[in-house]
Amino acid sequence: MRTSLFLPLLLLPYALPAQDPAQYVKPIIGTQKMGHTYPGATVPFGMVQLSPDTDTIPYEMNGKYNPDVYKYCAGYQYTDKTIVGFSHTHFSGTGHSDLGDFLIMPTTGPLQLNPGTADKPESGYRSRFSHEHETAEAGYYKVRLDDHNILAELTATNRVGLHRYTFPQADQAHIILDLVSGIYNYDKKNVWTFVRVENDTLITGYRQTSGWARTRTLYFAMVFSKPIKQYGHQNLDSSVYKGFYRKFDQTSNFPEMAGRRITAWFDFDTKAGEQLQIKFALSPVSTAGALRNLAAEAPGWDFEAAKRKSREDWNRELSKVTVKALSENDLINFYTALYHTYLSPTTYMDVDGAYRGLDQLNHQAEGFTNYTTFSLWDTYRALHPLFNILQPRRNADMVRSMLEHYNQSVHKMLPVWSHHANENWCMIGYHSVSVIADAIVKGNIRGYDAMQALEACANTARYKKYDGLEYYMELGYVPEDKNSSSVSKTLEYAYDDWCIAQVAKKLGRTDLYNEFIKRSQNYRHVYDASTGFMRPKLSNGSFRKEFDVLSTHGQGFIEGNAWNYSLYVPQYPAEMIEMMGGKKQFTQHLDSLFTMHLPDAFFAETEDITRDGIIGNYVHGNEPAHHAAYLYNWTGAPWKTQERVRMILEKMYKPASDGLGGNDDCGQMSAWYLFSTLGFYPVCPGSTAYALGSPAIRSASLQLENGKTFTVEAVDQSPQNVYVRKVELNGKPLQQRFISHSDVMGGGKLVFYMSRKPTR
Amino acid sequence: MRTSLFLPLLLLPYALPAQDPAQYVKPIIGTQKMGHTYPGATVPFGMVQLSPDTDTIPYEMNGKYNPDVYKYCAGYQYTDKTIVGFSHTHFSGTGHSDLGDFLIMPTTGPLQLNPGTADKPESGYRSRFSHEHETAEAGYYKVRLDDHNILAELTATNRVGLHRYTFPQADQAHIILDLVSGIYNYDKKNVWTFVRVENDTLITGYRQTSGWARTRTLYFAMVFSKPIKQYGHQNLDSSVYKGFYRKFDQTSNFPEMAGRRITAWFDFDTKAGEQLQIKFALSPVSTAGALRNLAAEAPGWDFEAAKRKSREDWNRELSKVTVKALSENDLINFYTALYHTYLSPTTYMDVDGAYRGLDQLNHQAEGFTNYTTFSLWDTYRALHPLFNILQPRRNADMVRSMLEHYNQSVHKMLPVWSHHANENWCMIGYHSVSVIADAIVKGNIRGYDAMQALEACANTARYKKYDGLEYYMELGYVPEDKNSSSVSKTLEYAYDDWCIAQVAKKLGRTDLYNEFIKRSQNYRHVYDASTGFMRPKLSNGSFRKEFDVLSTHGQGFIEGNAWNYSLYVPQYPAEMIEMMGGKKQFTQHLDSLFTMHLPDAFFAETEDITRDGIIGNYVHGNEPAHHAAYLYNWTGAPWKTQERVRMILEKMYKPASDGLGGNDDCGQMSAWYLFSTLGFYPVCPGSTAYALGSPAIRSASLQLENGKTFTVEAVDQSPQNVYVRKVELNGKPLQQRFISHSDVMGGGKLVFYMSRKPTR
Repeated sequence: MRTSLFLPLLLLPYALPAQDPAQYVKPIIGTQKMGHTYPGATVPFGMVQLSPDTDTIPYEMNGKYNPDVYKYCAGYQYTDKTIVGFSHTHFSGTGHSDLGDFLIMPTTGPLQLNPGTADKPESGYRSRFSHEHETAEAGYYKVRLDDHNILAELTATNRVGLHRYTFPQADQAHIILDLVSGIYNYDKKNVWTFVRVENDTLITGYRQTSGWARTRTLYFAMVFSKPIKQYGHQNLDSSVYKGFYRKFDQTSNFPEMAGRRITAWFDFDTKAGEQLQIKFALSPVSTAGALRNLAAEAPGWDFEAAKRKSREDWNRELSKVTVKALSENDLINFYTALYHTYLSPTTYMDVDGAYRGLDQLNHQAEGFTNYTTFSLWDTYRALHPLFNILQPRRNADMVRSMLEHYNQSVHKMLPVWSHHANENWCMIGYHSVSVIADAIVKGNIRGYDAMQALEACANTARYKKYDGLEYYMELGYVPEDKNSSSVSKTLEYAYDDWCIAQVAKKLGRTDLYNEFIKRSQNYRHVYDASTGFMRPKLSNGSFRKEFDVLSTHGQGFIEGNAWNYSLYVPQYPAEMIEMMGGKKQFTQHLDSLFTMHLPDAFFAETEDITRDGIIGNYVHGNEPAHHAAYLYNWTGAPWKTQERVRMILEKMYKPASDGLGGNDDCGQMSAWYLFSTLGFYPVCPGSTAYALGSPAIRSASLQLENGKTFTVEAVDQSPQNVYVRKVELNGKPLQQRFISHSDVMGGGKLVFYMSRKPTR
Repeated sequence: MRTSLFLPLLLLPYALPAQDPAQYVKPIIGTQKMGHTYPGATVPFGMVQLSPDTDTIPYEMNGKYNPDVYKYCAGYQYTDKTIVGFSHTHFSGTGHSDLGDFLIMPTTGPLQLNPGTADKPESGYRSRFSHEHETAEAGYYKVRLDDHNILAELTATNRVGLHRYTFPQADQAHIILDLVSGIYNYDKKNVWTFVRVENDTLITGYRQTSGWARTRTLYFAMVFSKPIKQYGHQNLDSSVYKGFYRKFDQTSNFPEMAGRRITAWFDFDTKAGEQLQIKFALSPVSTAGALRNLAAEAPGWDFEAAKRKSREDWNRELSKVTVKALSENDLINFYTALYHTYLSPTTYMDVDGAYRGLDQLNHQAEGFTNYTTFSLWDTYRALHPLFNILQPRRNADMVRSMLEHYNQSVHKMLPVWSHHANENWCMIGYHSVSVIADAIVKGNIRGYDAMQALEACANTARYKKYDGLEYYMELGYVPEDKNSSSVSKTLEYAYDDWCIAQVAKKLGRTDLYNEFIKRSQNYRHVYDASTGFMRPKLSNGSFRKEFDVLSTHGQGFIEGNAWNYSLYVPQYPAEMIEMMGGKKQFTQHLDSLFTMHLPDAFFAETEDITRDGIIGNYVHGNEPAHHAAYLYNWTGAPWKTQERVRMILEKMYKPASDGLGGNDDCGQMSAWYLFSTLGFYPVCPGSTAYALGSPAIRSASLQLENGKTFTVEAVDQSPQNVYVRKVELNGKPLQQRFISHSDVMGGGKLVFYMSRKPTR
């Protein structure tokens, strides 16, 4: 049983004081089990994510995957008892990982340069901590490090992490800068590390790794608020040739450190209660860039002011939505979800616009903010559509960033899963085209050329080396005997192709429209009418004999089984329903999905989610069926959408550390929550339509960048009144269960009349 | 016995046809045994040294030094029977090594991706070759690769290596680009390699290594003259995590290659006699920089024109000296020595001035050419003084480059042994200050601020962390029990300090003059009157008891024994002679040095030289006694200088592959040859004086950058007439055995009257 961690503020009727929605943000939500969120300090879309890491176990040992590491995608697990340190980069909610760069740990007592183990924290520099002495807020994190008697406080600007450590009296006060530590680490992940002690308060350097991102370098500049007494480093690769550096005692007060695996230490004298501050700036380009970022964003030493500023940054973004909720927990869920959607993509350029490109060259972002951390298989579904409403300017810059990636790509492909100047090739599809189509079709074209974007989309979709595309283009489907997860790929390629066709249509490129609208029909090739499921097909044209509709492994699907994935034709729901036997039969399929009882073996093999992330056989903790609950709108049973949506909202999102039923996936899970709570959802990004569901708030008003306000109101709202009796848009009854993007962006009012009973 | 490899051209009296002195350049000289020169193609002070590597054996195996590797400092040993390939960077004449970047090998037949072994060349891609089918000229190298039936030709611009391979008919013609191969390589030396196949003729990438240079990256752009048929790569670190790149068959036609140890291959069809050309541009900064260098320096495909241009570049520099020699071999020796002095330092910036600094940041060279490859312990002696005569503009830029190094140094130290944005800390002293003093005292101040240079010199000499300097500053000497090679260090610091004092004097900084002129006396602290030798002293002020005046190991010296090093007080020869018992006793010391017979054990432990590099106990193959033969000028026996110099010239420099008696050391050995052949030598760089010796030419005229001509003439010259009867400068008899720098730079004529008998 999960219970809220948060004491009620006793504010009724849970109306938001407009000036401080950040008070409802609880970064601790999702930090337990599968949420994979991090509790540390960051600002909206910030480059720095300064957050505690509670363990750093290796991803791979002796060449074999260590499944335990998966818990540490965000570096933090709520049930852990120790903190290893505070590192400056984290993914939010991912199901694979990297980062954890530049771990800082303040310690007292004898110098220790290895982290030690969770069961024996005194064996290393890590410290015990407890949640009683831990605070996680938007832009601020505080914890007491019990073993060292140090109070650690963190805040951040976009590119600078700010640390404030309150020490006890100590003649042995250390700051450890561990360049070996990292998330999803393993023996050979560190490629090179480099540290220069520029003077008695300034340190610069970089860390180069080869992990999920194959060739990644991140630079830093670090300033202490008081002079270093002495310093040194440990180099774990003592066998590496050291040349004539052997002339020096490099372990102590030698200002140039370099090697594959460096851990540096800096010593200070501290008085009781003395506060040592650190400003730690990042740059994708150079240590000089990090210094410029530092000077621009954190010139002084007023930690409190920086903390206030980061909260203001959050409030400015969060207050774009004003909500009246049914409970304070709902406010917490809502604003924490909004917070989670604003964590990624992340800024990836210096204050002067310099960034590293996919081609490993330094580039200058002219007239846009360059972003990275594109988890596109997840986020094309609801996150980027949400941005087209709440963050259109940023979303256009994200499209521009994807196009720059394309320009820099030797494959001439848009990003699949990219971060920090790398393409990770994670998951499937080419869903950049969905994000681009959604922006273009919704008229959010600024700072990039739509025709060039279309060309990028078309070329991406024609790159035959990519993941079965050659077969797909030849046969109309990906054959499972040639390329695994073939059904998922076929279905998603077909959807993406439809997106490209929509852009081509809008831009008058009939040739491309014809090419891709034809491909968008390819979902039909993997439908097996004899079973009523999408099913893996072989290159000889026959369906594969072995077929388990429940399993997610080796069945032609990824992160979803045939039950969930067979619903994946978001571009043609009506046609799909017809193909699958018509509305009645399809309704039965959907009903069964949500209600069937599954054996335990099923859960054991399901990735990225807990049992809590599943309702019947409906997997909400993964993304492929995120649109499924809304499909009842096409079967003539919208009340079933309404009850399912409200049920999912209640079961899958709780104001607790284990409140998320699956990976938040860079905000996609949270974006689903936000749309669904507001009463509408983008079933098919790339179209302008939103399917209506059942709002879970009393009211919400969205302050749009165009100066207009879109309001949702739920009349007769209550936890039981999950059904929608009628809907009015700007005072006029809506006949369809859909609204369009222009309805939202034009401002106006959407009123749901709620009821305890379905309106059939 | 060494004999000349070169057939006489039958030109009498060996007068130089002014337009083509390059005809006398024989790059093969010094490529056998200890010379450590390379025979490949380069231009004066060029960034690219494109040269064959005849073996690539590892520097270190299982953590232990492999002494055989020493032979391969320049990648090539004349007696080898196979060529591994052609790499783009080489040191000339060093006694330690690195580089050998980007090895290219053309092959036919089945694809082989490892080099194979010398005794079984068919086990890899290497090929047998013979000197009969090999030509090495200034700026051009040609060889037939017997195993592949390929004619390989190489030429170069400053930053671009040009390859022309004439293939047989082959449907399996390969170009191997081995990023693993390198000079002084070992298992972990490669840090990262990265290759992008940008299109079907253009490849870019980089190689990052940690060797002698600890953190070094070099970038390239490579263009083929015809499209690649297919390509791929081998990654030797298959155990490294590969992430989702596993989606692709990366071994074949996948355009992004990255890993610690990559070997790429590119396939072509070739017709019989078809020429495949490659242009291979380097950059210290980026692949984009390499592309700019390529576009600027090698836009077309006219190999013959490029070859002509490189020879013109050489002739322009070589023809600054016009020589009438005693024999054609002397012309060969002379111009090859001049060629060798123009190989280092090397250009280290892109055509647009961008270069990587010691701080690992990219910098822009404004108004100067940035140089690297500073082997200063060697080259301060005669090479930079030679440049102050023949290459003053370049030498001023070298000073500027050293000052930029200083500015970028976290130690605030001038370079010791630096290359490619790294300080290698090799050998001893801070001889940058000698180079700077020599330039300033001789008035060669341009493009840098002399006062800032003085400050850099003083700070360098006060950096206590460096190599015993703290003790030296406290005690007046380096104590052997605290820091080895203590006598060499004390003597050289004292000399360097004198250099700083000279600059201070010239610039009117009496404070610094007083500080450093005092330090320049420190040589006295290590003189042991009881033995008549410089001797290691302990921190308690007593001389160390154990003392072997012949050994070079563990005796307080480096690359020289007490016999040689005791002469090292170039700043005060007269005082030193006095201290060592006066002229008579000192003359005996010198005589013994040149004539004593040494046991074989002595040679076994002497570094960097062959037995040929030693005359008696005088070690010419190493540098510490390079001034020694000239010291007779101070003992009243200049005829002994004259006969010794001529003897050394004859014994140590021969027009043969094994013609150099020791490492050429980035041109220092050759600079000694040139000065001595011209009849004068800079015994104490940082002073304006040259000591006279015995010229070994009939006449020479030096075209100076200031438009003037300085001429040396030797009347009655012959191999036997090694003694100087009298000397006239501009028609007036010289009473002293010295001339000054202004005598040279003012133009004019120095006439030696030679004689078979000494003039006592």
